[in-house]
Amino acid sequence: MRIAVVNPNTSVDMTADIAASARAAASPGTEILPLTAAFGARAIDCTVESLISAVAVMDLLSTTAETFDAVVLAGYGEHGREGVQELVDVPVLDIAECSAHVAMMIGRRYGVVTTLQRSVAAIEDRLLLAGVAAHCSGVRATGLGTADLDSDPARTVAAVVEQARLAVERDGAEVVCLGCGGMAGLDTTVSEQVGVPVVDGVRAGVRIAEALVGMGLRTSKVGAYAPPAGNPMTAWPLSRHLARP
Amino acid sequence: MRIAVVNPNTSVDMTADIAASARAAASPGTEILPLTAAFGARAIDCTVESLISAVAVMDLLSTTAETFDAVVLAGYGEHGREGVQELVDVPVLDIAECSAHVAMMIGRRYGVVTTLQRSVAAIEDRLLLAGVAAHCSGVRATGLGTADLDSDPARTVAAVVEQARLAVERDGAEVVCLGCGGMAGLDTTVSEQVGVPVVDGVRAGVRIAEALVGMGLRTSKVGAYAPPAGNPMTAWPLSRHLARP
Amino acid sequence: MRIAVVNPNTSVDMTADIAASARAAASPGTEILPLTAAFGARAIDCTVESLISAVAVMDLLSTTAETFDAVVLAGYGEHGREGVQELVDVPVLDIAECSAHVAMMIGRRYGVVTTLQRSVAAIEDRLLLAGVAAHCSGVRATGLGTADLDSDPARTVAAVVEQARLAVERDGAEVVCLGCGGMAGLDTTVSEQVGVPVVDGVRAGVRIAEALVGMGLRTSKVGAYAPPAGNPMTAWPLSRHLARP
Amino acid sequence: MRIAVVNPNTSVDMTADIAASARAAASPGTEILPLTAAFGARAIDCTVESLISAVAVMDLLSTTAETFDAVVLAGYGEHGREGVQELVDVPVLDIAECSAHVAMMIGRRYGVVTTLQRSVAAIEDRLLLAGVAAHCSGVRATGLGTADLDSDPARTVAAVVEQARLAVERDGAEVVCLGCGGMAGLDTTVSEQVGVPVVDGVRAGVRIAEALVGMGLRTSKVGAYAPPAGNPMTAWPLSRHLARP
Amino acid sequence: MRIAVVNPNTSVDMTADIAASARAAASPGTEILPLTAAFGARAIDCTVESLISAVAVMDLLSTTAETFDAVVLAGYGEHGREGVQELVDVPVLDIAECSAHVAMMIGRRYGVVTTLQRSVAAIEDRLLLAGVAAHCSGVRATGLGTADLDSDPARTVAAVVEQARLAVERDGAEVVCLGCGGMAGLDTTVSEQVGVPVVDGVRAGVRIAEALVGMGLRTSKVGAYAPPAGNPMTAWPLSRHLARP
Amino acid sequence: MRIAVVNPNTSVDMTADIAASARAAASPGTEILPLTAAFGARAIDCTVESLISAVAVMDLLSTTAETFDAVVLAGYGEHGREGVQELVDVPVLDIAECSAHVAMMIGRRYGVVTTLQRSVAAIEDRLLLAGVAAHCSGVRATGLGTADLDSDPARTVAAVVEQARLAVERDGAEVVCLGCGGMAGLDTTVSEQVGVPVVDGVRAGVRIAEALVGMGLRTSKVGAYAPPAGNPMTAWPLSRHLARP
Repeated sequence: MRIAVVNPNTSVDMTADIAASARAAASPGTEILPLTAAFGARAIDCTVESLISAVAVMDLLSTTAETFDAVVLAGYGEHGREGVQELVDVPVLDIAECSAHVAMMIGRRYGVVTTLQRSVAAIEDRLLLAGVAAHCSGVRATGLGTADLDSDPARTVAAVVEQARLAVERDGAEVVCLGCGGMAGLDTTVSEQVGVPVVDGVRAGVRIAEALVGMGLRTSKVGAYAPPAGNPMTAWPLSRHLARP
Repeated sequence: MRIAVVNPNTSVDMTADIAASARAAASPGTEILPLTAAFGARAIDCTVESLISAVAVMDLLSTTAETFDAVVLAGYGEHGREGVQELVDVPVLDIAECSAHVAMMIGRRYGVVTTLQRSVAAIEDRLLLAGVAAHCSGVRATGLGTADLDSDPARTVAAVVEQARLAVERDGAEVVCLGCGGMAGLDTTVSEQVGVPVVDGVRAGVRIAEALVGMGLRTSKVGAYAPPAGNPMTAWPLSRHLARP
Repeated sequence: MRIAVVNPNTSVDMTADIAASARAAASPGTEILPLTAAFGARAIDCTVESLISAVAVMDLLSTTAETFDAVVLAGYGEHGREGVQELVDVPVLDIAECSAHVAMMIGRRYGVVTTLQRSVAAIEDRLLLAGVAAHCSGVRATGLGTADLDSDPARTVAAVVEQARLAVERDGAEVVCLGCGGMAGLDTTVSEQVGVPVVDGVRAGVRIAEALVGMGLRTSKVGAYAPPAGNPMTAWPLSRHLARP
Repeated sequence: MRIAVVNPNTSVDMTADIAASARAAASPGTEILPLTAAFGARAIDCTVESLISAVAVMDLLSTTAETFDAVVLAGYGEHGREGVQELVDVPVLDIAECSAHVAMMIGRRYGVVTTLQRSVAAIEDRLLLAGVAAHCSGVRATGLGTADLDSDPARTVAAVVEQARLAVERDGAEVVCLGCGGMAGLDTTVSEQVGVPVVDGVRAGVRIAEALVGMGLRTSKVGAYAPPAGNPMTAWPLSRHLARP
Repeated sequence: MRIAVVNPNTSVDMTADIAASARAAASPGTEILPLTAAFGARAIDCTVESLISAVAVMDLLSTTAETFDAVVLAGYGEHGREGVQELVDVPVLDIAECSAHVAMMIGRRYGVVTTLQRSVAAIEDRLLLAGVAAHCSGVRATGLGTADLDSDPARTVAAVVEQARLAVERDGAEVVCLGCGGMAGLDTTVSEQVGVPVVDGVRAGVRIAEALVGMGLRTSKVGAYAPPAGNPMTAWPLSRHLARP
Repeated sequence: MRIAVVNPNTSVDMTADIAASARAAASPGTEILPLTAAFGARAIDCTVESLISAVAVMDLLSTTAETFDAVVLAGYGEHGREGVQELVDVPVLDIAECSAHVAMMIGRRYGVVTTLQRSVAAIEDRLLLAGVAAHCSGVRATGLGTADLDSDPARTVAAVVEQARLAVERDGAEVVCLGCGGMAGLDTTVSEQVGVPVVDGVRAGVRIAEALVGMGLRTSKVGAYAPPAGNPMTAWPLSRHLARP
């Protein structure tokens, strides 16, 4: 089985981290195909950057010669999952949504700990649209931007642990989701310090993708995720029209 | 990995069917441990039978000498998942809830096709409590009781296909969940005839259980699913006190 | 008129307290028939104990030779009301739900004060399923287990008053429901100290039962609460099969 | 015990009918005090008429020399309950809300059958504000205005039965509420023909009022229903300033 | 274009303030027709006063010889908008609802700052019925009654700023609505001090009324807002029957 | 005042139609600045096309030398409004959302009539995220794609009228919104034939934009719509990097 794990930003360093995390999470026999957005932002911390990333991801999946059995979208709260579901018919897992599904199966309420306060809205909107908001106890921000997470790992852990604890103590969370692809790998540490299960989105995405493929399930094509309408396009795929992509 | 798959009714024939379905669904290396309720109803079609089954399942899991890495509860819309989560700390998957989670990842709205009209309420309540009701397009009944499903397989398929089609055409379902453990194995046939992905709860439960175990996740114990309170009990476990169990 | 008031736990002392409270609440001419679960926990503080109690109550009502015009279920947040409604056709009042209905008629928002934090989830779930969650301002825990309530009455009153006050001042409750059958009789004291109406579930259950009987109403049997499905049962009623019940 | 039963319209004939229905419903020892709005519409079928009736009822209760232990507001979907709760501190029961509470205790979902299509919105709004909309399967109209109900009783019964049947068969209602004070007395007939319990609002209001008084409960005065603010008023009570009331 | 701006209370001083605010907000060519309730309360701080004001406003609009192209109801959280929509077919804007619509178009969540705590419920109910509650972050009270707002302007500004700041910092509001007609004119000051857009209801009502009239839109008459039912009325319009209005 | 009206697709013919409609709707003194997406689809009928259009619109507004006082986004159910709100601080009106706000002010429930069945989901999602779903009676599809609307105007009118009528008669809509920018100009015809007010999104967007600008309001910048995060970008703005844009 081969799972495309897509980093929606343009940072190849982050792609490498995500790929490592995905490989560590995968079952034996599962191959991870890491992909990186060819244009857009190096880190995604607002709607403008998120929407561009969605298009970059769709461009990537429209143009790649690679084949895969499932797609994991490694942006947390980013746009684009519905579009990718139109483009491919293998299962597509958004890590924010997938984390929520996993969390709901091991606890009554889950909280999310993310980066900046402004990302809270994007994640809330994604969970609402995915139909998994009812059991979310809240989304909390550490105040650290995506690009800051790596610069001082100890500070990052401390900030995530602090908000995870508040999620449990004040909001009633019983499980905590790490609300940024860049937090991959912190789950064990945070879980030990806070005393609740912690869900890493990339790990969840990979394992759930394996499960769906194992069940022989594909994205439904009878409704919202039917193949694209095929209206005439200008400059699409964009990557093929960029002077220097 | 060893997954306990629990039939909440007392029919060993149904346990055999469920076990076969679970084994067919499992990954290589996963062992299925089928378990059958020691008391209660031979098929479950009402709340009285459901509540007794919940206690029978808890009794079973409290008294078994077997070990396992996850539990799949193979009743659709039955009570008891929260109680089992108190008793064990491995992941516990209710097939009705698990089917809904899986369906939501491959389609925008899902429908459920179950047995009798009176079971609709029980399933609606379970989905509501599990926080996955928002994307349910509705629960439809075939009019066949659980015990009738096996008696005339062709009729059963026809009835499920008819309601599945209505779920898609009238209710807007993009995925259909088979709303009874006794419908295990019909997913391929129904999917082919209706043209949408169909989720078999036992298959979903087994594969998602594998995924959660693979991620190293366990049920959160800080809140609603902490170990039982331990008040003094009379005649518990019931199976140890029954004259002839 | 004769009202069965059922204590879902096995403590005959608590049954006596509940019966006294019910008799004090009843109109002249109403007879109270106190019943006690024959098996299960002596106090109910988790889902395992709650589900067993539901079955014990159903067993009791299936086997009793007594007749009655209504049933009051004196557990707060316990399972089983829907099952009992299948078994009998007289009105069945769960005290948690009944308290909420009464509270909503005398104030815009109501709060619940219960025993342990872990019981909050069970009560929230019950109110949600009963369709009365929209006006609940929250469920608060005193931190005292059901069995602790009687051991130090002054401490119990102080703890209930403290949480009731917070329900009013922080959560916006205008009425407070006593969230445990074991708090019966505290309503006047708490009301005087907090300055809002306080609803005692047993009193509410008895008086509302009288009202429903007086209107000639019975549980609807056309849908969810039709008589049990009648599938073949093993060891049911359990009480008849217990070696020493 | 003395219960004021207030007809919000000016028809003394309808007051007499309502009073008869209330007296038939009351327990021995309960006295019914019928009151009639002194100004406004002879029947209430729109928001303009409803709002005037609310003021007429408040005027009546501000000026009457009578005393009473509870108030039953016999308009279905009319405005004013919250205002009356400010004016008095005895329990105040709106029959639309009270019917819903009663219905929810004897069935999983309830439907309402009312007069004109345009009244559906008013009733939906009232149920939403009262926090009891979640279990309402829908409000259906017979097409007969309030004033038409008496003119041809057989036609009225047939129209109510038809819509009640649709509420059960199409909407999933298990209990039907008669959605107009003018339908008082039809409950037995409709119930027999449709096969589900039918709730008459005036009967429900009287019996529930007795229950609340019996519990010693009064309207909470700490929040929304505190006594009126007491700003200086012009021409209030209006009845005292009307040239010929 | 001529817009009737209706002060629901009887204070001609407040009418003058509202009219000045409306004129300052209006486009060139828009004429403001200020109207004052002929009976009822001089300031509106409870449901009794609100319901009387609704009837006074309907009376006024039923009896005035003036013509107008739209109506702005300048009470915040008062009753009556639906009734006025029955009476006239020009657009009718309630300032609480209109403020919410405007706020939702310029920010993701909005908060309301009103007068007394007891008015919070009335405003919450109005926003719920208008279908705009989902994005309301909360309604906060300054503790100042409507009649107190003018007595010490500096204190009023300070109190509104304090609550507006809490709405932003604690509740997540991105826009603040001034929740009382008597706060007209404070928007610029509060916005400068708090750093978020502030919506003045009268200004919003006038400008949105202009927009609707400019689009040629009128209130829909096919459903809830059809003309009044026309049942026979006693003493209506009340103003024509008052001994001295 | 100058309002940018942005056609999110690349069809300059459709831009001309939209501009004509916007100019007809605008007040005297309002200048309309029509803008057309430089890349992406010629008509937008799926999520892939919608997301690309969102980026094309953001690109356009990031690179234009024009100035404007407000932005109207003339795609119905398209992505991007939140991103544009980050980029500019003048008011930004999405026509789907704006139509809903306008409709809610002139009727109790509104319906939407759009193009293809697959667009229903996109519009539902947009209304849900905008907080205006509660009063939507449903979104109906004519079955005509965006590009088909112009090819046979009589067929288009007939199809829209048919669905509008069903929205009113079956779903309870009191107002109908034209759910596609390409339906601009049909409002009068449809309204006359169906008998309810009909809202044209472009007209609504322009007039509401004028109103917001007239009130001096701008998009709140303290939360979700703060300026973009400014992470380093590759190939942005895309239009500057396209070989031939």
